[in-house]
Amino acid sequence: MSLVRVHTFSVSLDGFGTGEGQSLDDPFGHAGSRLLAWFQATRTFRQIHGEPGGRYGVDDAFADNWGLGIGAEIMGRNKFGPQRGPWADEQWKGWWGDDPPFHTPVFVLTHHPRPSIEMNGGTTFHFIDAGPGEALELAREAAGGLDVRIGGGPSMMRQFLAADLIDLMHIAIVPIVLGRGEPLWYGLEELEGKFDVEAVSSPSGVTHLTFTRR
Amino acid sequence: MSLVRVHTFSVSLDGFGTGEGQSLDDPFGHAGSRLLAWFQATRTFRQIHGEPGGRYGVDDAFADNWGLGIGAEIMGRNKFGPQRGPWADEQWKGWWGDDPPFHTPVFVLTHHPRPSIEMNGGTTFHFIDAGPGEALELAREAAGGLDVRIGGGPSMMRQFLAADLIDLMHIAIVPIVLGRGEPLWYGLEELEGKFDVEAVSSPSGVTHLTFTRR
Repeated sequence: MSLVRVHTFSVSLDGFGTGEGQSLDDPFGHAGSRLLAWFQATRTFRQIHGEPGGRYGVDDAFADNWGLGIGAEIMGRNKFGPQRGPWADEQWKGWWGDDPPFHTPVFVLTHHPRPSIEMNGGTTFHFIDAGPGEALELAREAAGGLDVRIGGGPSMMRQFLAADLIDLMHIAIVPIVLGRGEPLWYGLEELEGKFDVEAVSSPSGVTHLTFTRR
Repeated sequence: MSLVRVHTFSVSLDGFGTGEGQSLDDPFGHAGSRLLAWFQATRTFRQIHGEPGGRYGVDDAFADNWGLGIGAEIMGRNKFGPQRGPWADEQWKGWWGDDPPFHTPVFVLTHHPRPSIEMNGGTTFHFIDAGPGEALELAREAAGGLDVRIGGGPSMMRQFLAADLIDLMHIAIVPIVLGRGEPLWYGLEELEGKFDVEAVSSPSGVTHLTFTRR
């Protein structure tokens, strides 16, 4: 059975999954690199980006779950890039360079579809105007029996959670107060009732929550 | 040096320190007992209320810090009771019965002062119309060199944090999504910059954060 999974999704103490004011220079807006610093320090993250070193430990153990068994990703348009509305510039191919770390089909949710983009290393970006259920059908088909990762940002995460489509979810709580940004938990009262929840803190200060569908 | 401390203050994943709709029957509104269930299960909580049993472990270790070395508490009016505005009923003496667990002077912040109430066991409720700084001066004097506990709720906690008056703070993150209620973190962007922060999770699912002023 192909599962729908979330990995390394980081939120602040006040529940923001990204900051305010995303731009070309700041994919996470005023949050900067604070939400993902724990992930970027891991051995797994460095390997994904072809670099040596990095920390091993509980942060890395969770980071390492990110890719294994994944056959496709679905992401929101704001994770793909800072543009809004009709595509002014179809040259934009994401933040990740010529060889993005996904190495699978990636479905980008947008009200403004455009031709697919084939990148190096097996990543292809498809742009679809679809709700969570329809997007998941397409991604499952593309995943060829493997799991589907829900990549964020917070707004599409909320949609998938509200539609009860997520089987496994790893959330990292970063002990910072962002004050503003895009909230993850909004509108999801009593979400925990659908899941078994575990928590484990890391010496890095981050706390890893895992949600396993009951 | 007398410290200003916060203990066993619980928040949901979405940052609410209490639910919506406080009433005589529901001190925490729609949150019910969900925010404090971990505390109520501890050996310390049961001892405070004269009951045997209870869990020992990391939750209890933090619970046990609640009373030691404390000479006075400051609490918000909504922690004291469900009434708002002028006191319609001066018979109300708090949720805690004749012998409240504080055993020290307790300063209740309210725009509607009333005569002090001496309870059994050393607790006296004083009602003062004062800002955080002035309240702290009064509480420090009453504490006779011991520490002052900031008792909550969330709204007065925010005032004390914004005024940078808190030295040690223990926050328990409860893995529930309340959806609505009184937020703790609102208006406190970059609060973490003033503190060294540690996190440790408990088998109960709660994560204990400690903030030590730098």
